[in-house]
Amino acid sequence: MEMDKTYFRRISSPVLENPIFVQGLPGFGNVGKIAAYLLLKFCGAKPFAELYSPSFPDYVSVSSKGICRLPRYEFYAAPMEKNDFIIMTGDTQPSFDDVVSHYALCSETLDFIEKQGCSFIVTTGGVPITEEKAQVYVAATSPRLALEFMEKGAVIYSKGRIVGATGLTLGLAKERGLEGICLLGATTGFKADRGAGFSVFKFLMKALGNEVKEGL
Amino acid sequence: MEMDKTYFRRISSPVLENPIFVQGLPGFGNVGKIAAYLLLKFCGAKPFAELYSPSFPDYVSVSSKGICRLPRYEFYAAPMEKNDFIIMTGDTQPSFDDVVSHYALCSETLDFIEKQGCSFIVTTGGVPITEEKAQVYVAATSPRLALEFMEKGAVIYSKGRIVGATGLTLGLAKERGLEGICLLGATTGFKADRGAGFSVFKFLMKALGNEVKEGL
Amino acid sequence: MEMDKTYFRRISSPVLENPIFVQGLPGFGNVGKIAAYLLLKFCGAKPFAELYSPSFPDYVSVSSKGICRLPRYEFYAAPMEKNDFIIMTGDTQPSFDDVVSHYALCSETLDFIEKQGCSFIVTTGGVPITEEKAQVYVAATSPRLALEFMEKGAVIYSKGRIVGATGLTLGLAKERGLEGICLLGATTGFKADRGAGFSVFKFLMKALGNEVKEGL
Amino acid sequence: MEMDKTYFRRISSPVLENPIFVQGLPGFGNVGKIAAYLLLKFCGAKPFAELYSPSFPDYVSVSSKGICRLPRYEFYAAPMEKNDFIIMTGDTQPSFDDVVSHYALCSETLDFIEKQGCSFIVTTGGVPITEEKAQVYVAATSPRLALEFMEKGAVIYSKGRIVGATGLTLGLAKERGLEGICLLGATTGFKADRGAGFSVFKFLMKALGNEVKEGL
Repeated sequence: MEMDKTYFRRISSPVLENPIFVQGLPGFGNVGKIAAYLLLKFCGAKPFAELYSPSFPDYVSVSSKGICRLPRYEFYAAPMEKNDFIIMTGDTQPSFDDVVSHYALCSETLDFIEKQGCSFIVTTGGVPITEEKAQVYVAATSPRLALEFMEKGAVIYSKGRIVGATGLTLGLAKERGLEGICLLGATTGFKADRGAGFSVFKFLMKALGNEVKEGL
Repeated sequence: MEMDKTYFRRISSPVLENPIFVQGLPGFGNVGKIAAYLLLKFCGAKPFAELYSPSFPDYVSVSSKGICRLPRYEFYAAPMEKNDFIIMTGDTQPSFDDVVSHYALCSETLDFIEKQGCSFIVTTGGVPITEEKAQVYVAATSPRLALEFMEKGAVIYSKGRIVGATGLTLGLAKERGLEGICLLGATTGFKADRGAGFSVFKFLMKALGNEVKEGL
Repeated sequence: MEMDKTYFRRISSPVLENPIFVQGLPGFGNVGKIAAYLLLKFCGAKPFAELYSPSFPDYVSVSSKGICRLPRYEFYAAPMEKNDFIIMTGDTQPSFDDVVSHYALCSETLDFIEKQGCSFIVTTGGVPITEEKAQVYVAATSPRLALEFMEKGAVIYSKGRIVGATGLTLGLAKERGLEGICLLGATTGFKADRGAGFSVFKFLMKALGNEVKEGL
Repeated sequence: MEMDKTYFRRISSPVLENPIFVQGLPGFGNVGKIAAYLLLKFCGAKPFAELYSPSFPDYVSVSSKGICRLPRYEFYAAPMEKNDFIIMTGDTQPSFDDVVSHYALCSETLDFIEKQGCSFIVTTGGVPITEEKAQVYVAATSPRLALEFMEKGAVIYSKGRIVGATGLTLGLAKERGLEGICLLGATTGFKADRGAGFSVFKFLMKALGNEVKEGL
C-alpha cells in the first residue's frame, strides 16, 4: 500500500445491474452521511471496497476496543429488486482548503463507480433552512431531470452553489456525460440532523418507487 | 475528462485573423469581468472554448432552473471589421494562496491563445481610486506601448504592483516575447463597479479605433 | 542530495535481528520524543541513518559552537539481549496543515524500517490528562495486542483519535499487515513532560521484559 | 518559458575563477538584500542570469514608466582581483507557508551556482538586536570556519535558528559537502536597516581582505 496517492482496497466483487450510485459524506448537518447510512441499513448493503487517501486528515480513529484505523471512504453494494445501489459514505472529506484534492478524489470516485457500471449519480447533503417546513431540494445535470424530481415532490434548488463533494461529484459527472441529481435536506446545521437525513433518504426511496415506513 | 489538471473543452474552431486577446476576470470591483462582458456583448462574440481546473473552488453553480455546472473560464471569439478578438472571462480565480496555480493557469491560457494566433494581450482589472475623477490606468510590456496608450488618454500606472491574473498574464506574456497592455479602472471596489468597467471597455474600443456610444 | 523529495542518509549498516521499531517525535507535552530519548540512552543506541525532507520547516538549527544543520529525523540502532531496537526521533514534524506530507513521510519511514527487518511498531505520544493519576494508554492494530498490553498495565485508549505521526504511522503499518501499538502518556501538555515520557518508556521496557530503575 | 517550474534565463556567460557565492534576499530588516546590493555596487557586478518561479507571489511589479515585470532572483557576476563573486539578490521569497518551495528553490540555486564553479557560500540576513552595539553574527558549516570568522571579528551565533533562504541555503550546501558561512546583522527590523546591511557588507569585505571606506 503506497500512500503517495489514492488507494482502493477491494473486499469483494459484487455483481450489480446498472446500479445507481448514492453518495453521502460528512457535511452541513451531516445530512448526506445520515441519508447514506439509512439507505445502506434499509438495503442491507454489504461493504465491498474502501478508499484511502493522503489528502484525508492525518489521524487514526480508535474503536471502543482500542483498535486504530485510518480515515476512509466506504463503498457498499446493495442488489435490490427495483434498483441495484452502490452507496458511498466516509469518515471525512479532504481539508476545506485543498481544492485540488477535492477535484482529484471526486474524479477517482467517478472512475471507480463507472467501472462498476453506474451511469446515474445521486449526491446528498444539507442546506441551510430558509422556511419553516422541512424541504428536500434538487439540482440536476439536465432540465429534464430537475423537472422529473420536482414533479416527485422536491423543490428546485435555484441560483445557489453546492460546495464540497456533494456538488463537485455531480458537476464532474455531468462533464463526463453521466446523469444525476443532488438531493439537499434543509437543516439548521447546528448538530447532526437525523430528521433532514431521513427526509432525503425517504424522498429518494419514494422517487425511485420504494416504500419507506415512517417508523424506520 | 481527467480532472487532475487543467482541461480545455472545445466548442467550435473559429477562424480569426491575428486576434487581440482580452482578459477580464472577477477581481477588485469586478472591473475586469464587467469590461470583458461589455466587450463580448458589443462584439456579439460567440463562446468557442471552456477551461476547467482542479485549482478552481470546489463548488458547482446552480442555475435558476436547478442545473449545476462547474466553475470555468470561457473563451469567446469575435470576428470584427477592425480587429478580431478572443475574449476570456470566468466565474472565479484560483485561491489567493495558491500562487503556483495562478502561474500555471496563466501560462496555460497563454499557450492556448498563442495557438489561436494571438500576439497582443490586453488584461483588465480595477485599482483603488486615488483621485476624484474616473481614470483608466495603463501598464505595458514595453515603453513604446505605455507611451502609445498614454497618448490615447490613459494614465501611466507607475511604481505599483498588479496582483492576480491581471498582472501575471501580462508578465508571463512579456517573458514569452508577446506584447500587451493592462488597463485598470479606478474604483472604490466596494461593489461591482459597472461605471469603472464601462470606462475600461470604452477606452479600449476608442484606443483600437472603435466608436462606443454612451447609452450602451 | 536532491531536496525535491525525502532523502535518507546512511551512516552505517547495523545488523539487527527482527528489531522492534520505536518512534517518538515532538508533539503534545513532547512525551513521545522524551520516551524515545530515554530509550536510546538506556540502550546506548547508535545513530545509523538520517531522514531529510522538503516538508520540514525551512530553517537551520545552530549549535552552541555556531554550526548549522537542517532539521531531520534520526534513526538509532540498539542490539539488545532481549529485543533489538530501531529508535526514531527527530527535531520536528511537517506543518500541521500539510497532511499529504504526513502520509508520505510515515509511509517512507515504514518502507525504510521494513527493509531493516522490523515487523513490530511502537509509536509514542502524549494525550491530555483526564484523571488525577498518571496513566499510559494503549491503542493497537489488533484486539489481541490491545488486550495483551492492557494485561501488562496500560489502559485501553478507546473512542478517540490519535493525530499526527503517532497515529498515522500505526494506521499505515496496519494497512500493510504489520502489527504494533501506540503508547500514550497522560500529560497536561503545558510544557515538555519528562514524567509522562518516563512513564511511557518504563511501561514499554517492562512490557517487553526489561527492568528499569526509577532513578534513571 | 514554461512556468510550471523554476526557470533560469541566461543573459551572459561570465568567466569566473572559483567564485564566492553571496546571497542576500528580502527579510528581517532587509539586511541581507541591502548587503548584497552594496556588494554588487562596490564590485561593479553585472547581471548574468535571472530565476523565475511559480512559487513567487502572483503579481507583477510596475516601473515608474509603466513597464511590468515578474518577480525574480537576479544573479550578478563580479570578476575581482582578490576573489571573484557571484551575487544573488531578488524581489521576494516564496510564501512563508510553502516550505517545500523554499527547499526546492534553495536546491536549484545551489545546483546553478555549483555549475558556475562556486564551492564557498555566504548567506546574509538580519537578526533581532539583543545588545546596544551593532554586531555581525556568524554561523558556519564547520567549527573551523566559525572560529576563523570569529577571529576576524564576528560573534558566534549560537543555539538559535536561522529561518528562510538565509539558513536553508547554507544547511543544504553543507549536506552537499560545500562550505560556507551565514552573516547576520543585528537590527531592530522595524524598517529597512541600511546600517546593519552596511555592517554585514563591510565585515565580509574585510574578512576577505578588501578595504571598504566608511563613506561608501
